[in-house]
Amino acid sequence: MALYMDIHRNVGDSKREQIDEAHKKDLAVQGKYGVDITDYWHSEKDGAVFCLAEAPSKEAFGAVHREAHGLEADEIFEVTQGSK
Amino acid sequence: MALYMDIHRNVGDSKREQIDEAHKKDLAVQGKYGVDITDYWHSEKDGAVFCLAEAPSKEAFGAVHREAHGLEADEIFEVTQGSK
Repeated sequence: MALYMDIHRNVGDSKREQIDEAHKKDLAVQGKYGVDITDYWHSEKDGAVFCLAEAPSKEAFGAVHREAHGLEADEIFEVTQGSK
Repeated sequence: MALYMDIHRNVGDSKREQIDEAHKKDLAVQGKYGVDITDYWHSEKDGAVFCLAEAPSKEAFGAVHREAHGLEADEIFEVTQGSK
């Protein structure tokens, strides 16, 4: 398992409720791919969403969004968490 | 105060230790600008860093990085935290 941060830039003028709805769909699908989305952040001003997830691979993380609602990330970064 | 996520794309092949060092410099400066950097993530593979912070403004957040080490973000997004 590794940690990934993705960026969705084209969520347009989606409202918070729509993003939350899409996130619920992710949660319903993620188990199938061994993915655990632990956090997300929505920028309503800039029409962007960031998702942080533990996943077995970049592809598995991408597959969750693709299957759940089709709103795929523009980029996925493999990351390590900073020190506290 | 608002929540911001920024992206630094040009950290090149910096190693984790260098990113941690830069983060310590941020922590030493942030109080002056009323900023609280709560998390960061480093992608060594992709040469990128994400920082999450509570700040009074986008400009204040940017000022912390500028003064601390000069490694400014490429983009700063005002975000809201997703539901748990």
